[in-house]
Amino acid sequence: MKSVNVGLCGLGTVGSGTFNVMQRNLEDIARRAGKPVRITHVGARRDNPACHLGSVKVSRDIFDVARDPDIHILVELIGGNDVAKELVLEAIKHGKHVVTANKSMIAIHGNEIFKAAEAQGVVVTYEAAVAGGIPIIKGIREGLVANDIKWLAGIINGTGNFILTEMQEKGRAFDDVLKEAQALGYAEADPTFDVEGIDAAHKLTILASIAFGIPLQFDKVYTEGITKITREDVQYAEELGYRIKHLGFTRKTNEGVELRVHPTLVPSKRLLANVNGVLNAVLVEGDAVGPTMYYGPGAGSEATASSVIADIVDIAREIDNAGNVPHLGYSSETENMPVLPVSEIVTAYYLRISVKDEIGQMANIARIMSEKGINIEAIIQKEPEDESDVVPLILLTHPVREHRMDDAISAMQALESVTKPIVRIRVEQLDG
Amino acid sequence: MKSVNVGLCGLGTVGSGTFNVMQRNLEDIARRAGKPVRITHVGARRDNPACHLGSVKVSRDIFDVARDPDIHILVELIGGNDVAKELVLEAIKHGKHVVTANKSMIAIHGNEIFKAAEAQGVVVTYEAAVAGGIPIIKGIREGLVANDIKWLAGIINGTGNFILTEMQEKGRAFDDVLKEAQALGYAEADPTFDVEGIDAAHKLTILASIAFGIPLQFDKVYTEGITKITREDVQYAEELGYRIKHLGFTRKTNEGVELRVHPTLVPSKRLLANVNGVLNAVLVEGDAVGPTMYYGPGAGSEATASSVIADIVDIAREIDNAGNVPHLGYSSETENMPVLPVSEIVTAYYLRISVKDEIGQMANIARIMSEKGINIEAIIQKEPEDESDVVPLILLTHPVREHRMDDAISAMQALESVTKPIVRIRVEQLDG
Repeated sequence: MKSVNVGLCGLGTVGSGTFNVMQRNLEDIARRAGKPVRITHVGARRDNPACHLGSVKVSRDIFDVARDPDIHILVELIGGNDVAKELVLEAIKHGKHVVTANKSMIAIHGNEIFKAAEAQGVVVTYEAAVAGGIPIIKGIREGLVANDIKWLAGIINGTGNFILTEMQEKGRAFDDVLKEAQALGYAEADPTFDVEGIDAAHKLTILASIAFGIPLQFDKVYTEGITKITREDVQYAEELGYRIKHLGFTRKTNEGVELRVHPTLVPSKRLLANVNGVLNAVLVEGDAVGPTMYYGPGAGSEATASSVIADIVDIAREIDNAGNVPHLGYSSETENMPVLPVSEIVTAYYLRISVKDEIGQMANIARIMSEKGINIEAIIQKEPEDESDVVPLILLTHPVREHRMDDAISAMQALESVTKPIVRIRVEQLDG
Repeated sequence: MKSVNVGLCGLGTVGSGTFNVMQRNLEDIARRAGKPVRITHVGARRDNPACHLGSVKVSRDIFDVARDPDIHILVELIGGNDVAKELVLEAIKHGKHVVTANKSMIAIHGNEIFKAAEAQGVVVTYEAAVAGGIPIIKGIREGLVANDIKWLAGIINGTGNFILTEMQEKGRAFDDVLKEAQALGYAEADPTFDVEGIDAAHKLTILASIAFGIPLQFDKVYTEGITKITREDVQYAEELGYRIKHLGFTRKTNEGVELRVHPTLVPSKRLLANVNGVLNAVLVEGDAVGPTMYYGPGAGSEATASSVIADIVDIAREIDNAGNVPHLGYSSETENMPVLPVSEIVTAYYLRISVKDEIGQMANIARIMSEKGINIEAIIQKEPEDESDVVPLILLTHPVREHRMDDAISAMQALESVTKPIVRIRVEQLDG
């Protein structure tokens, strides 16, 4: 099968992440794309020590990549507007497909770029331009294709959400948190694009177009930032049962489309109100499906690279007209990955043990756990149930292999003082 | 452009939803698919009064649909295992692509069905088989294609989640909530598949295969239901900072793959722990992207139809080798949808008004609001700020058109007793 050659322009944060993830997951990506997909040409003014380019061809002039006859897909990760647009149009002129993460270029020049691409019979994709690693463009353009979309609301600027979350959770002031965000690298030295809502307006422009099938109209977005939000307002909102989130919001009404970015009170019980820190989320209301929400990292080197590569693979699958996605996502299933019996899994446990309220019983339980090498993280001992002399003892353990826990439960169950079947529920932290 | 003909087998809950959404959104679906997509043949033992079939051909023998030479795509929504599998294999034999929502058929017979499809050069898609309207199959197979998936955890049975949510929020007992779920139609008369975890195990089987590229292995899933969960355990978990959720969980370890469905304690602060009621969500951890989560309705007529139609359109786009998704999701953008100026939007408002603590000031404010036709939903009046005689007055309004609110703010700002600029933040309920 012919392999697909990718030219990568830009070796900054997203460019280096894209190069490294492509290298690291090369084989799995080929299994999923149904053919080898390789970066064969890099265009960058200078090397990035985070990337080992090896034998990959490198050009200091990025336009050399656009003109390379061996390249099928050009990946534009240089950022900015004018040169990026020129590069993309040059690549289109040479019959290349284009993948970009450039939200402002798409929001501002997208109509022109797409027209040029359609005239040349190539595609320009931009999953990484909105909400970083969340496959939201695909979710709306393809996953919700059956729906008349009513509205969508997105937390689409991680810096702003980090600042508002800190203000809400810790009662801190805007300026104070902004300084920390800058120190942590979440906010630029000039934070205007983030805190004045311009970055979110770029993304909302794109989301509204794919939701409603309207042209990109960045200049018509009403944009208000978070610089005037005070901790008092955050607290009063909380008292009223709301959280303040900086939303991109678009809705189709009988009179027209609303395109707006501004701080918004959202009921605290909504899942979207509980999206905290630098994370992003987009809530979409469709007439058939109702509400669906997409959540994840809105920025970061490899998170954004994840979306860049998804676009590359989508295009690679279409090259040579072999567009179908493999049935289980891979062109062949691997047989050499055994399924673990449940006795071999490792997890933490919640145990509820009904034990007679007598001296020494806790010591018996603790001894058994210790003998089996099981560490206890938390204990709650309750008052006797009903009017019996039996107390519920609640234990939370550290992770341990299941067959050890089975042994420990058998041993504890055999104690004369344990009066009922021990309740055991597994615990997962789900933290990465 | 040639239109794509769809044969629909089954007119039950999902079948009727699919028929009706296809009819209602016919034009938008064609704009998105780049060609007309029509249901031209329905196979059902009897009509469904919810569907106006009009001139669509109807067969009482569903196998007539599989053999109809005019059909490109057969949609299997009859449910069950044996006849459904026979129908799908018959359609494949006749060169049809297949779309199905049948989780048990895919989990149990998927390996065989996909092999037959690949031999015939057709595709079988099953977005609706997992998590109803959430585009999770697409999210993993395509959106996260760059990632080495580490693990995933899903609330993938709405009935079970409804029961656990009620137990947690209202301290109710399992049996009591199960009876209500049956009365509400969330649970079947025989709830075994839901409450014993079998339905979730079907879905987890599919998710694990697409996450890791392994064959479907339903018989190897460790499956435990929620029937033994007591309200005491729910309360003790809460005291420890956890919620009990019924999760499908799969993880790749060095020793093999974990495939397990069981009640699980999840830290209360995790977004997944806050997915309540009949809703579903799947959290996926990828090596590049980190965590992403997908949330929405896991069942329901039109919600599930949303995923069925997404599959239909995916296949329709590939027919005649015109597989690319339009740049903005539609084959042409519509110009006749104006963007509303922000003065014309309708929303509720949070206002913070700093007003002198004098008799009659509240009456002045209330009069202005009333004159502008603005209703007030909630008021908080605070103690004076610092040691001044100025009190912050917090108002939450009902929805009103923005220019009216502008007028009201101007009028209030002109009052001698209003000492600082009025703070105004918009409010969105995001409830459909």
